[in-house]
Amino acid sequence: MFIGAQVSLYPMTSDFVEVIFAGLKGLDPYRDQLRIETDDMSTLMVGAPGPLLDAIRDLFASAARRPEHVTMHVTLSRGCPGEPDDPSCRCETLTRAQDQSLAVRGAEAREAVKGAPVLGVEIDVQFSLYVLGQDRHMDEIYGCIDFLKESGTFLKSKNFCTRLRGDAGAVFETLRQAFLRFGPAEGHVTIDLTASANSPSKR
Amino acid sequence: MFIGAQVSLYPMTSDFVEVIFAGLKGLDPYRDQLRIETDDMSTLMVGAPGPLLDAIRDLFASAARRPEHVTMHVTLSRGCPGEPDDPSCRCETLTRAQDQSLAVRGAEAREAVKGAPVLGVEIDVQFSLYVLGQDRHMDEIYGCIDFLKESGTFLKSKNFCTRLRGDAGAVFETLRQAFLRFGPAEGHVTIDLTASANSPSKR
Repeated sequence: MFIGAQVSLYPMTSDFVEVIFAGLKGLDPYRDQLRIETDDMSTLMVGAPGPLLDAIRDLFASAARRPEHVTMHVTLSRGCPGEPDDPSCRCETLTRAQDQSLAVRGAEAREAVKGAPVLGVEIDVQFSLYVLGQDRHMDEIYGCIDFLKESGTFLKSKNFCTRLRGDAGAVFETLRQAFLRFGPAEGHVTIDLTASANSPSKR
Repeated sequence: MFIGAQVSLYPMTSDFVEVIFAGLKGLDPYRDQLRIETDDMSTLMVGAPGPLLDAIRDLFASAARRPEHVTMHVTLSRGCPGEPDDPSCRCETLTRAQDQSLAVRGAEAREAVKGAPVLGVEIDVQFSLYVLGQDRHMDEIYGCIDFLKESGTFLKSKNFCTRLRGDAGAVFETLRQAFLRFGPAEGHVTIDLTASANSPSKR
């Protein structure tokens, strides 16, 4: 299994370079658990979903604590058949999910969100979950939407995606659970995710 | 068939509101061909792939003509089983693709890119194509990658995505062809796309 993300931070300020570099510095505590490589368009992070989603969350939460409007785009992927197996990506939640019904997975996902840390940063998220290489992919999608609606972070459905809102801790735990608990445990699952904070737009 | 996108423009300048409003104004010529609705996170555009990709291209090209670093994120979707049929999304290319081999689709896609208009704006793109609800989705992905490598806009493969670079005209034609010619014509296909221009990062 290969698990990782391409992550881009977009601070809507003329000082964006400084904000991005400060954000990348905040990834330092994760550099022994994740492979992290930055190029001119995004930062690749490869590793287990525990540190992976924590690192992405902390990167965004730290930028969102500043006053400026900031957004982030993340392409999350697990189980892509074109990527090599990587032992550092091993994940107990995925291994257990293999034998669990959709109902059990939904219940465990809701529990995990309840236990999420409170970061004190309010954020908006919009995302799509894609289950690939499977005929009945929409069953898993609808199961995930049921979980989202009861997650405490659900805001609304939109065309092609779902909106979440809440504390960065709960929102990123919701995303991690959606990523891990829906779609086959050994399958190819991706998330297309946009986060936003401090937008001047009316909510 | 329902075809559309959620589009967000991210100008990396403290004047981002002005740049976004100017960009949205540039969509006016397309408002009779597309359904266009903007909220606090993105702009929904629904309609046929002709005007849809032209509108997204023009939105980004006009922002990229300014001096500031600007990025854009787009979630493109066609054939989502959760969306209603919409006659305004009808597309001849998709109808014909139904009976065409991967080789023929690739050849027609390359021809289309050759015929793309030159906009005089150099851009970078990073994107992932997702073919959903099908067992052998990777055949279509690899077929698409073969096309991309010969498109004239291919830069490199990255984990989870492909980099393109070139004139906005050729790059967005490459994206439209990838979106329409690969994956089953009646199937559920999405693209997770990030565009970038005027980045101060070394290329």
